[in-house]
Amino acid sequence: MKKKVIVTGCAGFIGSNLVDLLLKKNFSVLGIDNLSTGHLRNLDDANKNKNFHFVKFDLLDIKKIKNLFKNIDMVFHLAANADVRFGIDNPKKDLEQNTIVTFNILESMRVNGVKKIIFSSTGSIYGETSIIPTPENVEFPIQTSFYGASKLACEGLIQAYCDHYNFKSWIFRFVSILGERYSHGHVYDFYKKLLKNNNSLSVLGNGKQKKSYLNIKDCLSAIMIAIRKSPKKVNIYNLGTNQFSTVSNSVNQITKRLSLKPKINYKGGKRGWPGDVPTIYLNTKKIRKLGWKPKYTINESIIETLEFLIKNKWLLKKN
Amino acid sequence: MKKKVIVTGCAGFIGSNLVDLLLKKNFSVLGIDNLSTGHLRNLDDANKNKNFHFVKFDLLDIKKIKNLFKNIDMVFHLAANADVRFGIDNPKKDLEQNTIVTFNILESMRVNGVKKIIFSSTGSIYGETSIIPTPENVEFPIQTSFYGASKLACEGLIQAYCDHYNFKSWIFRFVSILGERYSHGHVYDFYKKLLKNNNSLSVLGNGKQKKSYLNIKDCLSAIMIAIRKSPKKVNIYNLGTNQFSTVSNSVNQITKRLSLKPKINYKGGKRGWPGDVPTIYLNTKKIRKLGWKPKYTINESIIETLEFLIKNKWLLKKN
Repeated sequence: MKKKVIVTGCAGFIGSNLVDLLLKKNFSVLGIDNLSTGHLRNLDDANKNKNFHFVKFDLLDIKKIKNLFKNIDMVFHLAANADVRFGIDNPKKDLEQNTIVTFNILESMRVNGVKKIIFSSTGSIYGETSIIPTPENVEFPIQTSFYGASKLACEGLIQAYCDHYNFKSWIFRFVSILGERYSHGHVYDFYKKLLKNNNSLSVLGNGKQKKSYLNIKDCLSAIMIAIRKSPKKVNIYNLGTNQFSTVSNSVNQITKRLSLKPKINYKGGKRGWPGDVPTIYLNTKKIRKLGWKPKYTINESIIETLEFLIKNKWLLKKN
Repeated sequence: MKKKVIVTGCAGFIGSNLVDLLLKKNFSVLGIDNLSTGHLRNLDDANKNKNFHFVKFDLLDIKKIKNLFKNIDMVFHLAANADVRFGIDNPKKDLEQNTIVTFNILESMRVNGVKKIIFSSTGSIYGETSIIPTPENVEFPIQTSFYGASKLACEGLIQAYCDHYNFKSWIFRFVSILGERYSHGHVYDFYKKLLKNNNSLSVLGNGKQKKSYLNIKDCLSAIMIAIRKSPKKVNIYNLGTNQFSTVSNSVNQITKRLSLKPKINYKGGKRGWPGDVPTIYLNTKKIRKLGWKPKYTINESIIETLEFLIKNKWLLKKN
C-alpha cells in the first residue's frame, strides 16, 4: 500500500515543490494549507494526480485538524508565518502560526499514533552568533527575532515529543531557499521594484549582509537523503550551500540579467529590518556526510528565481 | 517615590520569599498568582505591609491582566507550571502556563512601556548535555522535557523582546531550590511518604541522579546582585552551588534527621520520571564573577527544608 503523508503549508513555495516530488516518488499526499500566503496555482500539477488531496484548514484550530492525521505515516510540517520581516509589528503571529500550530500538529500526531515529523526550521535560530559558518552544535544561541524564537520553541517541542512519546524527527535549519515558485524575499522585492521604476532601486540595510542561499531542488534532495539515512530520534541538519552572497551581489546579478543600471540607494544599517540577521552562513558538514551536496551555485539560483518571476508576473501583483 | 514592581507567582515558594525581600528593600510590590499551586499563607507577612498588594488572576487571560502593568518599573516573572513531572500527561499545560503566559507578560509590558524583566528559567533547559558542570554557553541543547522546552521558548521570546523593543532581561537558570516554604520536590515527597510509613521508602529512579540544589536565600541574593551589576540587554546566569547531591544522599540526610531506618526501594532507571534529567550540575562562574557565592551547603539546605516541613505539616495535606 502507498505510504500516506501530510504536507502542511502545501501551497507554499517549498511545500508545493515537496508535494510534487513526493507524488513522483509514489507517496499518497494529503496537503493542508490555509492559503494565507500560499497559492493554489502552485498545486496545479499536484491536483492532476489522484494521489493528492488538498484541504484548506487553519492549523490553529486543533479540533478541526485532529482527524486528518489518521493512518498517516509521516508529517512534513512546513506551514509557518512567512512574513518574517514583520515580527516587530505583530509578535503574536509567530507565536500562533509557528509555535502553537506546531504544538497542534504534534498533538494531532500523538493522539493518532503518527510518530515521524519533518520540520522546516531556520538558520535565524542561531541569532547573531560569531561562529561563522555556524555548525548545528554551536553555543547556546540568543534569539534576535520573533521568527527565530518561535522556531526555537518548535524545535524544543518536537524534541520533547521525541523523548516522551518515541517520535522520530528531522529538523532542517534552512538558509533562504531560491528557485521555482519563490514568492517572497529579496529577489522578489528587487524585481518588483525594478518593474515599477528601473532608474533607481532602494535596498534595505547597507547591502553588505552576507547570506547563504540554497536551491529548492537541492533543499528537497537533502531532506530525502536525510530521511533515508538518519539514525537518531532527533536529527538536526543545517541546509545551505558552501557559499554566501552579499545583498549587493544579488542586486548586481539581477540588474545584469535585466540589462538595467539603476541607481542603488542603500537605506543603511547592518540589518535590513528588525530581527534581520546580518550574516547567515551555515556549516553543512553534517548533511554532506550523508552523501549530499548542492548542485546549484547561489548565482545560478538567483537567476533561476528571476527567470521564474519574469514568467510568472501574476505573483508580483499581490499586496 | 517607591519603585513599583510586579511579582508573578507571588504565592509560590520562590515568589513569596522574593516578595518579602523586595518589601524589606522598600519596593512597592504588586503580587499576582492564580493560586493553582501557590498558598495564600505564604503571603501572611507580606499582607501586613501596606506596600504589598495581591491580585488573583490567571495570566493566560491577557485582556484582564494588561492594565495591571501600568507604571510598573520591573517585572519578576516567576509564575509557571510547577508540576514538572507530569508534562507527559498534559503537554499543553507547559505550553500554556509557561510559554503563552510569558508572551502575555511581555506583551502587557510592551503596551505599557515596562522594559525590565527578571525570569526564572531552569537548568533542565540543557537537556542531557554531556558537559558537566554545564556553562551558560554550552552547545545548542536538545530538549528532553516539556518543562525545559517551554522555558526555552520563554527565553527566546524574552530575548526577541529585548532586541526589538529595547527590553532588558535577567534570565536565571535555576537548579532545584530548597528552603522555607518549599512545597514540592523530593524532600517533600520523601518526608510525606515516611510520615505514612516509616518502615520503607520507595524512590523513583536508581537513586544515583546527581542534582545540584540551592538555598532560597542564596538564590535571591544572586538575583539581587545580578540586577545591580549586569551590563547587557540579555543577561543569562546559571544559579546553583558548586556541589551536587545524589538522590540517595538526600534520602540519607532525611532519614538520619528523622532517626528512621526504612528499607529503601529504588524503582530503577537513570531517570526518576519521563523528562527527568539524570544530572543537573551547573557551572556558576558567571554569577560568581559578580561577587556572589552561596552561603549554604546542599545538606544544610535539605535539613532546613525538612525542618520547615516538620513545622508546617499542613503543606503535606494537599493532593
